[in-house]
Amino acid sequence: MATNGQNGADAATTLGPEFTKEVINSMGPNTDPRLREIMTSLIGHLHDFARDVRLTSDEWLAGVNMINWAGQMSNDKRNEGQLICDILGMESLVDDITYTAATKASSNLTASAILGPFYREDHPVLKNGSTISSDTPKDAQMAYMHGRVTDAATGKPLANAEIDVWQASTNGLYEQQDPDQKDLNLRGKFITDEEGRYSLYCLRPTAYPLPPDGPAAQMLRAMDRHFYRPAHIHFLVRVPGYKQLVTQIFDRDCKYLENDTVFAVKPELAVEFKPRKGDPKAEWDLEYDIKLGAMEA
Amino acid sequence: MATNGQNGADAATTLGPEFTKEVINSMGPNTDPRLREIMTSLIGHLHDFARDVRLTSDEWLAGVNMINWAGQMSNDKRNEGQLICDILGMESLVDDITYTAATKASSNLTASAILGPFYREDHPVLKNGSTISSDTPKDAQMAYMHGRVTDAATGKPLANAEIDVWQASTNGLYEQQDPDQKDLNLRGKFITDEEGRYSLYCLRPTAYPLPPDGPAAQMLRAMDRHFYRPAHIHFLVRVPGYKQLVTQIFDRDCKYLENDTVFAVKPELAVEFKPRKGDPKAEWDLEYDIKLGAMEA
Repeated sequence: MATNGQNGADAATTLGPEFTKEVINSMGPNTDPRLREIMTSLIGHLHDFARDVRLTSDEWLAGVNMINWAGQMSNDKRNEGQLICDILGMESLVDDITYTAATKASSNLTASAILGPFYREDHPVLKNGSTISSDTPKDAQMAYMHGRVTDAATGKPLANAEIDVWQASTNGLYEQQDPDQKDLNLRGKFITDEEGRYSLYCLRPTAYPLPPDGPAAQMLRAMDRHFYRPAHIHFLVRVPGYKQLVTQIFDRDCKYLENDTVFAVKPELAVEFKPRKGDPKAEWDLEYDIKLGAMEA
Repeated sequence: MATNGQNGADAATTLGPEFTKEVINSMGPNTDPRLREIMTSLIGHLHDFARDVRLTSDEWLAGVNMINWAGQMSNDKRNEGQLICDILGMESLVDDITYTAATKASSNLTASAILGPFYREDHPVLKNGSTISSDTPKDAQMAYMHGRVTDAATGKPLANAEIDVWQASTNGLYEQQDPDQKDLNLRGKFITDEEGRYSLYCLRPTAYPLPPDGPAAQMLRAMDRHFYRPAHIHFLVRVPGYKQLVTQIFDRDCKYLENDTVFAVKPELAVEFKPRKGDPKAEWDLEYDIKLGAMEA
């Protein structure tokens, strides 16, 4: 029962820390210990938030409506619940926590960045040196991306590493968002050779805004923020015996590098596209090496 | 940009308080001041929560899926986003904050409780002494509810107060959830007479569980909690010049009084149903007076 009157000092509400304890203590003995840890912290922080700002019923209901709207707009092509978290920095934060925990023993690793909502499991495997653009738009600039995957600790090249690559087209859309792009356009999986090398042609990436029609967009407008993600390429790298890496690399010349609207940029993930001479297939060259951490034995 | 390395002491993540500040500072100059206050606190608490429990990407994504599912199940007959907040005590807390702020100057008021998702604006006005049950189930026990609405400070009776009353049937369903109940069953609006009196026949309320098929139910199961709300009657009281009151009264004999799954019970809202003699229309009597606070001039 919501007993009151025990925190007369706080005039904002009769429901003080005793009330929060009551909600937490309602969890039964068969609650999974990790879930109990998470819910104890979540309930405490939510209640403290409400008390700190003296959140009113109307303000809370506006938040509930936002959450319900996010779910109603989400489907297999978009995820507005995720996007709301992203614009508040939550996906970048939990990504960093997860990767930091997984790689605590190692250093010198390639940094992680968020997966985002546009990954697909079903990338086709392509030969090194081939292109992921089956449908190159007129305003695109092509780039040749290449490098090596190595063990971060020893420098040993890692053969047979799988690198999933994906990127948006110049209109800011991933193929599953865009009826005008071919299925699986701007996606591919590459396997490193004996010396850990991979290579592919892709678009030099371009900045794009988040979708303008959902609750995340409404929140961005209310917070007087811009909608743009800096130009980036996603990848996910897997080698048996090593921690999986999910990350993004960012064009260091992009004007949104310093203020990504989903806060995914880390300084070490900014890369330089250099002019490429004598290749009719690409005007830019990007060399990028990937350093993975071994699993603990 | 997510600058790191500035909080070496915290091994859980490279994204410490500086990162949180960056997200908060992304709000532009045209942000409404109250929204800025709310979002600053919300972002801080969400980030602290993630760092406190070292929330992983998979755990976060399970939360996102829960939120999206809540939206997808919500419609004009149910509100799962609200229900998730309710089982975490959030609606009771913000209701109390709101009512406390509105009535700070007064004391001796009838306590507030949450509105819940089943209120309807379109209650019919009924005469005092009539029944709200147009469809009484066989297992119901009828009660005669009556009392006075007064000014909490002066004791003056308040005439022409509007009292909206609503309750669930004995199967635990409100009429809009239940195709077998008549439209507007177990709802009514009553107007107090010159002496502030109201009276009506209703069901002696019975405990009921929350819906078992949504994300709120899944969370309750995961937290090893029961699903029940104690037996209660809702009402909303309006008189010009007085603070609106939204509350619920609870049968003090109900076994769930001490552990309402949405934490809405306050001790002063527990009431006693007494045996009623000589009235063929009701076997229980409930006298309940309502004390309202005047608006500040």
